[in-house]
Amino acid sequence: MRIYNFSAGPSTLPIEVLEKVKADFLDYEGCGMSVTEISHRGKIFEKINSEAKRNLRKLMNIPDNYDIIFVQGGAAMQFEAVPLNLSRGEKPKGDYIVSGSFSSRAYNEALKYGDMKLVASSEDKNYTYIPEVKRSDFRKDADYVHICYNNTAFGTRYVASPDTGDVPLVADLSSCILSQEFDVSKFGVIYAGAQKNIGPAGTTIIIIRKDLEHLALPICPTMLKWSTMTESDNLFNTPPVFAIYMAGEVFKYLLAKGGVKPVNEKNEKKAAMLYDYLDKSDFYNNPVQKPYRSIMNVIFTTPSPALDDKFAAEAEKAGLFYLKGHKVAGGIRASIYNAMPLEGVEKLLDFMYSFEKQNA
Amino acid sequence: MRIYNFSAGPSTLPIEVLEKVKADFLDYEGCGMSVTEISHRGKIFEKINSEAKRNLRKLMNIPDNYDIIFVQGGAAMQFEAVPLNLSRGEKPKGDYIVSGSFSSRAYNEALKYGDMKLVASSEDKNYTYIPEVKRSDFRKDADYVHICYNNTAFGTRYVASPDTGDVPLVADLSSCILSQEFDVSKFGVIYAGAQKNIGPAGTTIIIIRKDLEHLALPICPTMLKWSTMTESDNLFNTPPVFAIYMAGEVFKYLLAKGGVKPVNEKNEKKAAMLYDYLDKSDFYNNPVQKPYRSIMNVIFTTPSPALDDKFAAEAEKAGLFYLKGHKVAGGIRASIYNAMPLEGVEKLLDFMYSFEKQNA
Repeated sequence: MRIYNFSAGPSTLPIEVLEKVKADFLDYEGCGMSVTEISHRGKIFEKINSEAKRNLRKLMNIPDNYDIIFVQGGAAMQFEAVPLNLSRGEKPKGDYIVSGSFSSRAYNEALKYGDMKLVASSEDKNYTYIPEVKRSDFRKDADYVHICYNNTAFGTRYVASPDTGDVPLVADLSSCILSQEFDVSKFGVIYAGAQKNIGPAGTTIIIIRKDLEHLALPICPTMLKWSTMTESDNLFNTPPVFAIYMAGEVFKYLLAKGGVKPVNEKNEKKAAMLYDYLDKSDFYNNPVQKPYRSIMNVIFTTPSPALDDKFAAEAEKAGLFYLKGHKVAGGIRASIYNAMPLEGVEKLLDFMYSFEKQNA
Repeated sequence: MRIYNFSAGPSTLPIEVLEKVKADFLDYEGCGMSVTEISHRGKIFEKINSEAKRNLRKLMNIPDNYDIIFVQGGAAMQFEAVPLNLSRGEKPKGDYIVSGSFSSRAYNEALKYGDMKLVASSEDKNYTYIPEVKRSDFRKDADYVHICYNNTAFGTRYVASPDTGDVPLVADLSSCILSQEFDVSKFGVIYAGAQKNIGPAGTTIIIIRKDLEHLALPICPTMLKWSTMTESDNLFNTPPVFAIYMAGEVFKYLLAKGGVKPVNEKNEKKAAMLYDYLDKSDFYNNPVQKPYRSIMNVIFTTPSPALDDKFAAEAEKAGLFYLKGHKVAGGIRASIYNAMPLEGVEKLLDFMYSFEKQNA
């Protein structure tokens, strides 16, 4: 019996992809080996790697002046790789907007490497909104501006990218990549852990404008240098073969389904179903300011933390898993990434309704 | 039809483990999810993670004053993490023995971080032996001595660890971990990419003596700090869940087979079969000095590079894959890790015999 998995990541994947991976697990395309066994230096992986990149380029309409690499370490590694890779002078100058737990971590990690400026923060209202900024808020000579586009823990998202003028915009898209259309040309660098909308944990996707690939500090570890990976087609050392393969299978699946647009429509619909219900309810509360509501992570509370815990525990018994909120944010969180079917949201709504009736 | 996979890594895995992983792929232990989907913060992964560590501790008889962590990035990341993590003074002081391509890379990466000494090298004879060193060759105040125990590219291995006195010995065991018994207490730090004797690519195992966990340089990225991972049970950020799960399945499999000792006996036998044949042949040549022959990577040449290529190409047609030598070392390489069955070596010997007959 398949349950509905509302985890913030790693998270639910398309069952069609899982079934295909299972079917091919012992013998991938008749090669006589499992993908978990193939050499990263051979033709089989070469095809997997290049197809995955080509298909991601198609899905996101990534311009030719951007490279795509699959690395290890997670988005958290990029919190440090960003300042280590983007320094036109002796020390990097980064402007940060802090709108949640991950952007806050990114800012704090960057502090040790250079001259970082906290341009705006929504900490004053417990990250319930995205700070609005103007171009003049950023330093003209900054090496980059960093944002986290969708805040997994606090359930907010940017409505539009901030205008940073000529300063490259670096964005953590971990929890919203491929969930909506993005104009990649507006970004200098995009990075995203795979384990939300893409595949299993174990690889992170980086999309880099080519002119930003050679600005690393001398102390930057070779393995964290983006150029190390762009120049080797991410084969400088052994890549996470299976994680890249599964990401590639999800890309193929999305292309077959018509790309990002129809997925986004479904995502908007799933989110609207939940927010509509929350807005009508006196029992549940979503604290996020309406324009900034995430369509990937819907957070809410019941009248008490004790009831929140009861909600998550009883939901599990009803086949709805991982609904407990982020450890910092508390409450309840329903992560409804691309692969969460409409029926999962319907089941959750049914459960919310009956839980409210029994506990109001 | 399953082929025989002689890749140096990623490499062949036990078919019994692959079959179990396939059977459980859509629904792991009745949880209603694939392991590729489960949260790293939940009870299911907590059990996978802790069991994997407990079983590795059992298999390698790892003393209590050592921590075990599963990280991302590969052994190549540790080439830099080692100097960044092991500095009692302002800059790390590392003594290196260079006995092949990976130890050479480790030494070259370390140079940018501190005062590194090349204690000995076997480059003079194209890495066909392991340099013999005495305790007095090492600096008494070195922070560590670094070696690579088994040289995948050049087919050599240490017979015994060098005596480094009080200086902690750091060893890359990527291509020999679990292939033979090691006295872990002789090492300060052991690291090993999983993709040879353990599981799919995507995780690296680090075994650290606890008193060496807090010597990181201030510039060391948080994500490369061993203490970040030991203090969080490698859950500081999302770990490579599926890679750790599969490594854990291999550990269980090895324990059920009686542990490392019987596997080592099989490995010695497989290697002896190949070396015996090579020693008797006038057609094939193994360049390695006899005492230092690897039992994991058996390298050899035919009378010409053109014949080496022909050998590898025809072997593939006979179901024997990835026999081409390392790009630097050339020739032919048969990697016969734990999971390579005896029958694979027998098939290879049959092929070598008929190839010799046809081309001598």
